[in-house]
Amino acid sequence: SERAISKMLFVLTNKWGNLLSPHLKGHQVSSEVVEALNSLYEILGAKKIDDIVFTSSGAEAVNHVIQSVYYDQTLESGKNHLITSNIDEAPGIMAIGRLEEINCMGKMVDANKDGVITAQAIADAMSPRTAMVSLSWANGLTGVINPVHEIGKLCEERGSCFHLDATHVLGKLYFDLEDTGATHVTFNGDHLHAPKGTGGLWVRGGRRLSPFIVGGIEQAGLRAGSFSTANLAALGEAAKEALDARDFVCTEVARLRDKLEDGIVSNFPDAVPFFQNQERLPHITAIAFPGMTNESLLYQLSRSGVYACIGGGSFQQIGIVLENSGVDHHLAHSAISFSLSRETSEEEIDQAIAIIVGEAKKLSKLSTCFYKK
Amino acid sequence: SERAISKMLFVLTNKWGNLLSPHLKGHQVSSEVVEALNSLYEILGAKKIDDIVFTSSGAEAVNHVIQSVYYDQTLESGKNHLITSNIDEAPGIMAIGRLEEINCMGKMVDANKDGVITAQAIADAMSPRTAMVSLSWANGLTGVINPVHEIGKLCEERGSCFHLDATHVLGKLYFDLEDTGATHVTFNGDHLHAPKGTGGLWVRGGRRLSPFIVGGIEQAGLRAGSFSTANLAALGEAAKEALDARDFVCTEVARLRDKLEDGIVSNFPDAVPFFQNQERLPHITAIAFPGMTNESLLYQLSRSGVYACIGGGSFQQIGIVLENSGVDHHLAHSAISFSLSRETSEEEIDQAIAIIVGEAKKLSKLSTCFYKK
Repeated sequence: SERAISKMLFVLTNKWGNLLSPHLKGHQVSSEVVEALNSLYEILGAKKIDDIVFTSSGAEAVNHVIQSVYYDQTLESGKNHLITSNIDEAPGIMAIGRLEEINCMGKMVDANKDGVITAQAIADAMSPRTAMVSLSWANGLTGVINPVHEIGKLCEERGSCFHLDATHVLGKLYFDLEDTGATHVTFNGDHLHAPKGTGGLWVRGGRRLSPFIVGGIEQAGLRAGSFSTANLAALGEAAKEALDARDFVCTEVARLRDKLEDGIVSNFPDAVPFFQNQERLPHITAIAFPGMTNESLLYQLSRSGVYACIGGGSFQQIGIVLENSGVDHHLAHSAISFSLSRETSEEEIDQAIAIIVGEAKKLSKLSTCFYKK
Repeated sequence: SERAISKMLFVLTNKWGNLLSPHLKGHQVSSEVVEALNSLYEILGAKKIDDIVFTSSGAEAVNHVIQSVYYDQTLESGKNHLITSNIDEAPGIMAIGRLEEINCMGKMVDANKDGVITAQAIADAMSPRTAMVSLSWANGLTGVINPVHEIGKLCEERGSCFHLDATHVLGKLYFDLEDTGATHVTFNGDHLHAPKGTGGLWVRGGRRLSPFIVGGIEQAGLRAGSFSTANLAALGEAAKEALDARDFVCTEVARLRDKLEDGIVSNFPDAVPFFQNQERLPHITAIAFPGMTNESLLYQLSRSGVYACIGGGSFQQIGIVLENSGVDHHLAHSAISFSLSRETSEEEIDQAIAIIVGEAKKLSKLSTCFYKK
């Protein structure tokens, strides 16, 4: 976001002091901090008594929440059981894995055939020792939204914390945090068009939260380290823009996403868009191209100017996510995730359809491991 | 640093892609990453086989190092003893405190009357279970440099890790990491004139280092989270400048610092500069103003345009640091730390002397808790 970058530059140039310094250079920056935090409260629909911690990424925020379970729950009450899902993202899964080294137990719940984590699956996995359920609000590769209200109600009834990674839903979904029953919410800044190096953590008012980075009174002791007013200000500006654009994303961008799916399927009938009947985010689609591997198609698309995604790292690759949702192995690994933004134009979608269909047709002819329907 | 901000703006505008994305927008950024990392290797004098992790602050880097002791040492070998000092900074002390909640033992070694942590004091505190000694290379409020070579040798002999917080020495001291015996070095970016939200961690080649923020393959799995090429590029640029300015800082800035001390003492003879006979950093001085509290003087100085420091938070306030170095309570709490930079001019020093002396004389007359020599 250009507005976010301008704001950042303004703060770096004019208000670079340390917020906590006992002199004018420090005092100057507080108005920027207040303005930015207000934007974050607004996009989250947070209440005054809730806390928001500014972090350097969504991954840091997720690590913060999950480690705090150990210090705030396990060491206090003995509750040492954490639940996530097998289509969740690496930071949550790996942070739970790390707690398994120190006497905690993790459990990965399976997605169903619709790419959804159901409340029933969570209920079946819970025990009286469950300290936290940690889930992505919506899957970032398929766009499928989880039934967080039901799951939140369940967590409330059973006395478990409920962490939602809201990275993919902020600015793309209407919600009321109160209704979700979430106790902790995290998000990554660059999905809001903020610069990388930004993220945040919301915790429901009255909930205890130990710091993750200890060693200072910054952010009321919840996160030590030189406080980057510039990064926070950029995130705040991006949040304002994202909130203003939410209507547009939920209607016009959804229309363009549907047009992309229709255009691809009309011209390359073998293509399989996933989970079209589920509640999905407006800007994401996962589409399989039977007969080719997604990596080869991704490479060709990149060369032609279509930048798409198959996930990354060891978890949360689209092939794994789809297989874990019951999709056949070969089909799952022929899938690519496309995401649009408020800046994506109709012309770009038309061009993308032509390029994607063209490259898929080429690869389809070349492919030696042709997928049999 | 204006050069750092320009670099950052360039990357944010032109190379905002995700380094790990399998498409052109991702590939574009790698040259920036390589260039910036090279600068960090250079300012640290690191070898190719050493690892450098880019973090969001020095505090994060310190937390990273200290938590890794638990996962890499304590869980493996049972070594659970960590040593720091009573004039050290909060992140190290508190990160060790956090490990004390999970079966580790921390020990704070006392500074001597010269504000120094001696190798003898460390040797006396060590045990066969000592996993790490963690110290500030130099104190950020008094400028006193610790005998890290002796301490490093001791750690090597006793088989303990040795973490140095190099925040205050980078660009202000000539050193060879090899000679220090350090196994881990951390630093905060804004002390190098980089934007806040930057820091780093160096680990000697071949040493194991668990990640702190888990959940991704970013930085070879050593730190998960959207990688901020812009922040790293700014830090790299700042490191280049700091290295270029090191000669100047070690000579001209040291001269101006001495001039500040002399000017204050000549015109306000009660003033007590500390540790002038010790090996000190060139840009820092701690001076007591008997007969007044440092907070009241700091407030008056801020109003007159001299921005100084008494430390912050619960640890590492100058009063505590000096008392822990054997300075009388009242004298310690009348002290202020001044720091200069490569941008500080002779005129500014002249003005500062006049302002500081003027405000100190005023307060000295007003003060009700006059300090008796």
